[in-house]
Amino acid sequence: MSVLIRGGVVVNADGEARADVLCEQGKIVAVGAGLQAHGGVEVIDAGGQYVMPGGIDPHTHMQLPFMGTVTADDFFTGTAAGLAGGTTTIMDFVIPSPQQSLMEAFRTWRGWAEQACSDYTFHVAVTWWDDSVHADMGTLVDQHGVNSFKHFMAYKNAIMADDEILVKSFRRALELGAVPTVHAENGELVFQLQQELLRQGITGPAAHPLSRPPAVEAEAVQRAIAIADVMRTPLYIVHVSCAESVAAIALARSRGQRVFGEALAGHLVIDDSVYRDPDFDFAAGHVMSPPFRSRAHQGSLWNGLQAGNLHTTGTDHCTFCAQQKAMGRDDFTKIPNGCGGIEDRMSVIWDAGVNSGRLTPSEFVRVTSANAAQIFNMHPRKGVVAVGADADLVVWDPEATRTISARTQHAKGGFNVFEGRTVRGNPSHTISRGRVVYAQGDLRAVKGAGRYVERKPFGAMFDALRRKQTQDA
Amino acid sequence: MSVLIRGGVVVNADGEARADVLCEQGKIVAVGAGLQAHGGVEVIDAGGQYVMPGGIDPHTHMQLPFMGTVTADDFFTGTAAGLAGGTTTIMDFVIPSPQQSLMEAFRTWRGWAEQACSDYTFHVAVTWWDDSVHADMGTLVDQHGVNSFKHFMAYKNAIMADDEILVKSFRRALELGAVPTVHAENGELVFQLQQELLRQGITGPAAHPLSRPPAVEAEAVQRAIAIADVMRTPLYIVHVSCAESVAAIALARSRGQRVFGEALAGHLVIDDSVYRDPDFDFAAGHVMSPPFRSRAHQGSLWNGLQAGNLHTTGTDHCTFCAQQKAMGRDDFTKIPNGCGGIEDRMSVIWDAGVNSGRLTPSEFVRVTSANAAQIFNMHPRKGVVAVGADADLVVWDPEATRTISARTQHAKGGFNVFEGRTVRGNPSHTISRGRVVYAQGDLRAVKGAGRYVERKPFGAMFDALRRKQTQDA
Amino acid sequence: MSVLIRGGVVVNADGEARADVLCEQGKIVAVGAGLQAHGGVEVIDAGGQYVMPGGIDPHTHMQLPFMGTVTADDFFTGTAAGLAGGTTTIMDFVIPSPQQSLMEAFRTWRGWAEQACSDYTFHVAVTWWDDSVHADMGTLVDQHGVNSFKHFMAYKNAIMADDEILVKSFRRALELGAVPTVHAENGELVFQLQQELLRQGITGPAAHPLSRPPAVEAEAVQRAIAIADVMRTPLYIVHVSCAESVAAIALARSRGQRVFGEALAGHLVIDDSVYRDPDFDFAAGHVMSPPFRSRAHQGSLWNGLQAGNLHTTGTDHCTFCAQQKAMGRDDFTKIPNGCGGIEDRMSVIWDAGVNSGRLTPSEFVRVTSANAAQIFNMHPRKGVVAVGADADLVVWDPEATRTISARTQHAKGGFNVFEGRTVRGNPSHTISRGRVVYAQGDLRAVKGAGRYVERKPFGAMFDALRRKQTQDA
Amino acid sequence: MSVLIRGGVVVNADGEARADVLCEQGKIVAVGAGLQAHGGVEVIDAGGQYVMPGGIDPHTHMQLPFMGTVTADDFFTGTAAGLAGGTTTIMDFVIPSPQQSLMEAFRTWRGWAEQACSDYTFHVAVTWWDDSVHADMGTLVDQHGVNSFKHFMAYKNAIMADDEILVKSFRRALELGAVPTVHAENGELVFQLQQELLRQGITGPAAHPLSRPPAVEAEAVQRAIAIADVMRTPLYIVHVSCAESVAAIALARSRGQRVFGEALAGHLVIDDSVYRDPDFDFAAGHVMSPPFRSRAHQGSLWNGLQAGNLHTTGTDHCTFCAQQKAMGRDDFTKIPNGCGGIEDRMSVIWDAGVNSGRLTPSEFVRVTSANAAQIFNMHPRKGVVAVGADADLVVWDPEATRTISARTQHAKGGFNVFEGRTVRGNPSHTISRGRVVYAQGDLRAVKGAGRYVERKPFGAMFDALRRKQTQDA
Repeated sequence: MSVLIRGGVVVNADGEARADVLCEQGKIVAVGAGLQAHGGVEVIDAGGQYVMPGGIDPHTHMQLPFMGTVTADDFFTGTAAGLAGGTTTIMDFVIPSPQQSLMEAFRTWRGWAEQACSDYTFHVAVTWWDDSVHADMGTLVDQHGVNSFKHFMAYKNAIMADDEILVKSFRRALELGAVPTVHAENGELVFQLQQELLRQGITGPAAHPLSRPPAVEAEAVQRAIAIADVMRTPLYIVHVSCAESVAAIALARSRGQRVFGEALAGHLVIDDSVYRDPDFDFAAGHVMSPPFRSRAHQGSLWNGLQAGNLHTTGTDHCTFCAQQKAMGRDDFTKIPNGCGGIEDRMSVIWDAGVNSGRLTPSEFVRVTSANAAQIFNMHPRKGVVAVGADADLVVWDPEATRTISARTQHAKGGFNVFEGRTVRGNPSHTISRGRVVYAQGDLRAVKGAGRYVERKPFGAMFDALRRKQTQDA
Repeated sequence: MSVLIRGGVVVNADGEARADVLCEQGKIVAVGAGLQAHGGVEVIDAGGQYVMPGGIDPHTHMQLPFMGTVTADDFFTGTAAGLAGGTTTIMDFVIPSPQQSLMEAFRTWRGWAEQACSDYTFHVAVTWWDDSVHADMGTLVDQHGVNSFKHFMAYKNAIMADDEILVKSFRRALELGAVPTVHAENGELVFQLQQELLRQGITGPAAHPLSRPPAVEAEAVQRAIAIADVMRTPLYIVHVSCAESVAAIALARSRGQRVFGEALAGHLVIDDSVYRDPDFDFAAGHVMSPPFRSRAHQGSLWNGLQAGNLHTTGTDHCTFCAQQKAMGRDDFTKIPNGCGGIEDRMSVIWDAGVNSGRLTPSEFVRVTSANAAQIFNMHPRKGVVAVGADADLVVWDPEATRTISARTQHAKGGFNVFEGRTVRGNPSHTISRGRVVYAQGDLRAVKGAGRYVERKPFGAMFDALRRKQTQDA
Repeated sequence: MSVLIRGGVVVNADGEARADVLCEQGKIVAVGAGLQAHGGVEVIDAGGQYVMPGGIDPHTHMQLPFMGTVTADDFFTGTAAGLAGGTTTIMDFVIPSPQQSLMEAFRTWRGWAEQACSDYTFHVAVTWWDDSVHADMGTLVDQHGVNSFKHFMAYKNAIMADDEILVKSFRRALELGAVPTVHAENGELVFQLQQELLRQGITGPAAHPLSRPPAVEAEAVQRAIAIADVMRTPLYIVHVSCAESVAAIALARSRGQRVFGEALAGHLVIDDSVYRDPDFDFAAGHVMSPPFRSRAHQGSLWNGLQAGNLHTTGTDHCTFCAQQKAMGRDDFTKIPNGCGGIEDRMSVIWDAGVNSGRLTPSEFVRVTSANAAQIFNMHPRKGVVAVGADADLVVWDPEATRTISARTQHAKGGFNVFEGRTVRGNPSHTISRGRVVYAQGDLRAVKGAGRYVERKPFGAMFDALRRKQTQDA
Repeated sequence: MSVLIRGGVVVNADGEARADVLCEQGKIVAVGAGLQAHGGVEVIDAGGQYVMPGGIDPHTHMQLPFMGTVTADDFFTGTAAGLAGGTTTIMDFVIPSPQQSLMEAFRTWRGWAEQACSDYTFHVAVTWWDDSVHADMGTLVDQHGVNSFKHFMAYKNAIMADDEILVKSFRRALELGAVPTVHAENGELVFQLQQELLRQGITGPAAHPLSRPPAVEAEAVQRAIAIADVMRTPLYIVHVSCAESVAAIALARSRGQRVFGEALAGHLVIDDSVYRDPDFDFAAGHVMSPPFRSRAHQGSLWNGLQAGNLHTTGTDHCTFCAQQKAMGRDDFTKIPNGCGGIEDRMSVIWDAGVNSGRLTPSEFVRVTSANAAQIFNMHPRKGVVAVGADADLVVWDPEATRTISARTQHAKGGFNVFEGRTVRGNPSHTISRGRVVYAQGDLRAVKGAGRYVERKPFGAMFDALRRKQTQDA
């Protein structure tokens, strides 16, 4: 099957230029002016549009068992929603329970993911430690294409990794050429604040952000950075939500550390007033961690993306329906944490980022796909419009407008944190591995069409880290 | 004429991959695996080597009349030296005398440059102000491919631009879609310190750095940033040499300003002890402004490059022979300011940057060519190995070693600030517009073969700036 | 005449303690428990109250000829208003016109000030430069008790000091043991922005803050700091109004510079919404430079005072009546710049600072008197409740409330920027040189009772600066 | 017993002035010019000298059982050494073993301290947690004059307080009006680095600083600051040793937190080259935690003291003899941590601080006594030369020189980290509670003459914190 995208402006991380793009057998085979369509080629007219790498969402949770329930979107519905929004690869998380074998959990998630309709790959969480974890990390890297491990610094009494685990796992990751990543919130402080709020009888969703103020996140960001510094590892921080965290990352980078930060579409445009809404369903629907922040933090996140102190954008797509959220009606700590967004990330960031002048189209590509591909060593297969790359593309109509709503979305859960937001800039077509899977509102997702993306360890920066360590010694 | 580079690893700003590169008629026409050589193609074996965009030196002064003399290198010898070192494009400066017409100066420099053997382009300096300057800026942008203007904040009583000129010229540049650039040193402080030192009888080269301490540079950096902030223009700061300046740039970027910084190869590896050498010729040979700094500043510059707070590397190549330098034997303020380096920049930065683990090969490409091409809107013609780009390439042998010396260099002036430094990582071949101009030590530069590069105004960031301004209003 | 203040809590910069205070012949002669009143002593019951050093306002302009008119308050009415508010010393400014002899201007101001009813002293402005200015600075320090010089970095085409003047005057001040002070705004940027706004037809008071954004102030703050750094002088920055300036001062201090900052009562509590009021008189009544800022800046100023990065609080008391302000009805650049406040500074800062928990009572004393006395070398005569100090005291009732209004104030001009603000914490009594001049609403100011305070040069920090310079050399 | 100190310059935190000082019955009873000596008064001629508050060392460990041994100095020899050096009050630490009752430990230390010859007081460490600890904290504050609690973030598997303990203890301290203090090093990182070094066979003292790099300290500083921020408590950080920590404190203060920092005399002047000395006894003699740092950090500490981001200076006086240090001959982790210094702190800081121009005499008083007295609520009894204060004084001869040596010191342990350093500026006389205990080299310490200093809770800043919390709510 061949697709020729004609007449658009190709945008990559390093610039933009008018060019046609020809895809064959799932790959990009030509990028240039005046490409000719031979017979049987599906031609897409991209006149007045941009042709960009399909989005990579580095942070999703499909079919996640969490807090006693399971998310509304499975790998099929979740990736289908992604394709509708221009996202062609997701990076999901394997999260073993404490004491559960990493390999066993990995196999479980791999099984669930087989129904995905876009490409996918996995970060694997380290939620506990013993020799088997140490060994399994090696197996995952050497034999299963995993090159990143996740650590939750929050969720005390559940999956929280304390400093001992962080130190041991970061060291092991470095040895394997894999990137340590963290969910940065101080779990002890969260726990104590939750208890205190409940003691005071503050039990509704409004208590959620009070139990996780910015200082709780910034503390953990700084701790993870310090551990990475001492262990001489790179570090990737998921869902950075506040100014203090961005500042900490910028400082570490200015001292020569290789620290990367991810912002979520939600944190970039939604503020914490949602938690004070009297409608429980509405407020609870926004409960995720870290919580949405006051407006000033959004500016810091945008500046971080523009300046290169934040690198990727994700969603933490993790959908629960109202009934699930209602588990915490009398105790906010029991509201399942999570919101959606995979379908809207690209549009929201284009609209709030490019239309507002915060980002150029090239910078948009960096933060929606190219940087994730580089950090997690999927480049040049993903994140670039170039000959030889996977034909994962989005044709982007900068003038198309759409009003986001749960009523019209493809994702499950019946809720959308961007409800009512009108965005200008939307995909007209999405191509996944060379097939047109979305065209002008028509979603043609095929269950099981997605492929698992193996990622090699020892991306370019590991070589640099090794040289640096040698030199310092 | 066709050239096929076979078996190397192609490095671009966004990553690296094994690929062959085919050049025809001055352009890159194919990048991919297993390219076949047809008859008449010159084949270069790049096995074990990197294939990268030819270097862009964003800061040179060939044939510059300065302080009553003229630099040793003209456009031919200077660009030839560049080709020997893997640099295929220079950005030189048209510097009108106060009251001289910008157009007249521009034509003069264009004439001088016709003998260049590599591509070249010009920043034009704004050294005074009246309506003709305002008009000529427009003519240069609209008709002559200039998209950047330079301002000297130093050199009081000569070409210094005071705040009034800066404000007016920055505003005009924004209107034209051109990037304002500054040499950031507070000329008044320099002048006063010079006078004070001479009064105290401190007249030798050792006085040079004392008259231009880091605070003098940092002040001007911050002032230029403030003016750019208020005028809502982008800003490019040439030869950033000290930690305080890097910090100021990082802060401005973290607040959302589009500020770019350039580091010189010399500042990255040479420290200020050279000025205390008792040999006048040696000390004076290092006199340039800003001066070399104490060692701690070097680390800040490298971290700036790695973190993305500095963007380009140049040389400020501006060579004077010992006889010229001797003009200031009794008065350091009369030593012609300037050092060489165009021939060695790429090797020095690879050796001190990549070999030490401070930079990955991709980051090396960013800071030696790609970022300059992007900022000054030469991308995708320059700064990238891609189909359609100019065939300006360097084949890089990471294991080749060379000991730098004035005795073996191609540049004139008889002096080299990197004298005696052994660098690992050197060009094996340089290709300029599709011709092999340097091969394994054999320099085949052709006088006049270089072409003037027209640069369009309104690069991508200007669109973003305009959107931002609209939004804020 | 003797006064015994009994039963209060004495507050000094270093702490507080219950003690009685006895004043005789204009001096404090005893501080301790259970002091006995001999015959003829006026006894003040300070039970439940604080006894603090009388306020020092380091920044006032009485009887100032400015922008073609003269301020509403002269030295009598202005200092009387100060006494009513607990301020017993003012530091006013001698401002020579360009080309006017400093000595002549100084004598003029000394004459005007003879009617003051509280103590006073003068900063002298350096608004131009030649040998006579250099000489007069020496005369003022050696023979007239001046130890601080003021420089306006704003007001282009009028009294603006350019970098050349700053450098020369700072160096001269250091030589004399006097403190250079600056009004930090980039006059060129202000001028250009004003012209631009007028060109666009934006002529009302709302244009005033647009012509002087924070970046304009921060630039000048950083420039003055850089010049002080290079010249190795201390530096005092008047009316710091924005977060960026506080950050610049904090950074300079953390690098070892002796930089001091002053905040105005107005900037601490009033925001820039006042300029958007449709009532010209109201908006114009708030026109001063730097202008009031958005609310976030206030927090930075308070934090600066608490952390010790800002040191004093003043008013820039400079009153104009509505008729005078109306001179700028059609052109905001012609509105006389200035607001009042001397009568309310202490109460406003207590109410917004101590009552809110931002400052302890001791910190209140530091920022309202003690630090000014120390920086300008009036300690231990002023700024401390101790034996031997001048009997300039305020008895402070922390529970007394008052609603500020122009209708009830003693100051002239018929306007009050704090109009309608209710403050808790007010003076019950003010003692000036041992005389009760204000008691429970009864103002007993005596024209001409104030004395000129001679201030010696070479305060303690100059000795430290000299030692540091010796060591570095 | 009466003492009259005549002819000196009295230095306090807020300034200096020539005055005589009369002490009677252990108190200062007069400060002023021309005080007359009545019969029986011991007169000290302080001509050409300074009269300052006796030093307060906020950080000592006398008679400490630690790492299986006991320090060389007990409360008698330690405080005697202090008096010889001008220090008249020590703040020592009660350190319960995990599971040991706080009250029991407190009583034990009180017993040991009875032989002290200068005044003393105790911080009490919280090394574990249960309801009894919670209760005992209350008893200590309410009935025993304790207003500060110490937490060790280092020493894993021994006395380390984890985040849970920190949160609970900080909250309890706030409730009681007591100041939480921390030894800030990440114990987990230290432990892992120690194990790693031992694994690599690096067992000597040179490994000590490698196991505790600055990042390990800075992490804990930031974590403690974050916890204090979230819990809204003040925070005092003991022995701040590196630039990163000072920066973190400065940042917290600039955001409005009440964070205080202590520097040790040793960290201010000694660098980490001592650990690379081949002589085990010499290297091990310097083993303390945090370790001495590279030279650049010293500048940051001095700037911190000058700028007001660090507040006190101590010694962590904790002496071990060579035989004790030898316990770690084959394993650096077994070298008892600790160095002396109480006898030399004042002289070292005067010499390196005042003589070098980093501090004025008043600033010297702030950092050697006044600030400690204020933070720990001993003012105005301690830390000030004023009527009513304890007659704890030092007469300071700024010209007296002394070469420090273990051979001539009064402290035990046979080692001195300042060995061979010549200091200019030494005490001529020390007065403790009105008695001359040191005069021109003659030490007249009396065992048991010292008194326990009870410190009230709820110092002034607690009232401010309470108001702030009320306002924010």
